[in-house]
Amino acid sequence: MPLTTRIEAAITAAIRQGQGGIAPAKLAAALHYATTPGGARIRPTICTSVALACGDDRPALTDAAATALELIHCASLVHDDLPCFDDAEIRRGKPSVHRAYSEPLAVLAGDSLIVMAFDTLARAAPQDAMRAVELIRILAARTGMPHGICAGQGWESEPKIDLSAYHRAKTGALFIAATQMGAVAAGQDAEPWEELGARIGEAFQVADDLRDALLDEDALGKPAGQDGLHGRPNAVAQLGVDGAVKRLTDILGGAIASIPSCPGEAALAAMVRQYAERLTPLTQTARAR
Amino acid sequence: MPLTTRIEAAITAAIRQGQGGIAPAKLAAALHYATTPGGARIRPTICTSVALACGDDRPALTDAAATALELIHCASLVHDDLPCFDDAEIRRGKPSVHRAYSEPLAVLAGDSLIVMAFDTLARAAPQDAMRAVELIRILAARTGMPHGICAGQGWESEPKIDLSAYHRAKTGALFIAATQMGAVAAGQDAEPWEELGARIGEAFQVADDLRDALLDEDALGKPAGQDGLHGRPNAVAQLGVDGAVKRLTDILGGAIASIPSCPGEAALAAMVRQYAERLTPLTQTARAR
Repeated sequence: MPLTTRIEAAITAAIRQGQGGIAPAKLAAALHYATTPGGARIRPTICTSVALACGDDRPALTDAAATALELIHCASLVHDDLPCFDDAEIRRGKPSVHRAYSEPLAVLAGDSLIVMAFDTLARAAPQDAMRAVELIRILAARTGMPHGICAGQGWESEPKIDLSAYHRAKTGALFIAATQMGAVAAGQDAEPWEELGARIGEAFQVADDLRDALLDEDALGKPAGQDGLHGRPNAVAQLGVDGAVKRLTDILGGAIASIPSCPGEAALAAMVRQYAERLTPLTQTARAR
Repeated sequence: MPLTTRIEAAITAAIRQGQGGIAPAKLAAALHYATTPGGARIRPTICTSVALACGDDRPALTDAAATALELIHCASLVHDDLPCFDDAEIRRGKPSVHRAYSEPLAVLAGDSLIVMAFDTLARAAPQDAMRAVELIRILAARTGMPHGICAGQGWESEPKIDLSAYHRAKTGALFIAATQMGAVAAGQDAEPWEELGARIGEAFQVADDLRDALLDEDALGKPAGQDGLHGRPNAVAQLGVDGAVKRLTDILGGAIASIPSCPGEAALAAMVRQYAERLTPLTQTARAR
């Protein structure tokens, strides 16, 4: 089964589980709306790729980990789009959840997706309870306070931002969770996989900053120039476009070098290289200016 | 150790864990603010009482279960108070979280508390991984979609409400979680404990409806008459004050009768009776009118 098919099937199953039985219909629909169409599913793809590189001996745990990561990511998008944060009208090329459904339903959809993420991991526990518990611990640490994506968003309410803590929590956290959860789902230690996740997260942040600076709303599928508008730190503002492109290349090289020794090491390096190539058009756009 | 001391200590430890290290200071403070002062801590008290009645052989799991329940309850209060829901200015006699901190920090505090609840249960897993996973499953089912408190709140966005599903999800869910999690933390089956939780939840709902109808804002510590204002179903509106008082007495009798056979059955019945007596002044207020 191709990776994308496997990942979509797992996410769809989790959403159906959350919609099932006698339930409020609009909120049930909002759960599906908030998680489709899926975009690149980058975090689950990284997670599943790492698990495969480590042998993927408990595929149900891998699928649960990949799904849980995406559910948390989607929940964060729904809540970040709320009027009190970015007040985003569009997301992934369609109206944001609070625009399509209502603000109360957007708050509840985000809450429900967070809960569903942990439920999905707990449901996979019969395969290996200790691994499931470690997956839950990693996901919680990278989602909540003091070091997860909630903390990252929380830094934006501070008069003085610890930039390193901010970036690591806001963007890095779920990428670190992705590599570590892939490894743990396949029975490996989490710790050696932190650096790969952190570096992919950094690369993603710089690429996002470049996109935000260089592309318009149509190409982005969301409003452009949001960082400048909201006074958020941004690699292009700090380093200029050329500096940011160089930083991106360096980080991806470091990511490949950091891959721990494992049966699928070469395939994993190829995946990161492919990921780097997908960022190339962006680099060329930058160079053409 | 008195029950309240034990419960407060466990909740305080979880909040400190969530605040620790380099973290955004306002969000860290909001986590403490949202969970103190604690009110009656009814859900953790029921959970711990059931665990004690069943032998409480893994006290760290019991404490984690009690804490997780209260964190979810507090998260739901923070989000329910948001401008897009009740727009509540006060809660537990002080400004609501979004009034005291900001709307973004209230959304994030609620999200962080939900995550912290599952993290707290996962942290207690070394005592017994299988029990911890079952506790996580129960809490998730009673918190998210399709049958948890998120679903309960979601019903309020529907043009036609399934009243039975609404009440069971909105108020009943966390009481059912409380009795079942207490039992599971102490190594018992969850299923026989559902009815006790459901009945306590029903009693709580009717008592809350009576309070909402009979007391003013000062006595409630939150705005009065909110159900009528928001068009929510209400036992007093359906049955009248006398009818609601009779219903309350019947439900509590049924709750005591439903307690499963366990070593601490008598003590548990005494707790429910004590809980009923705490509702007596309310009944007398109603009768005096």
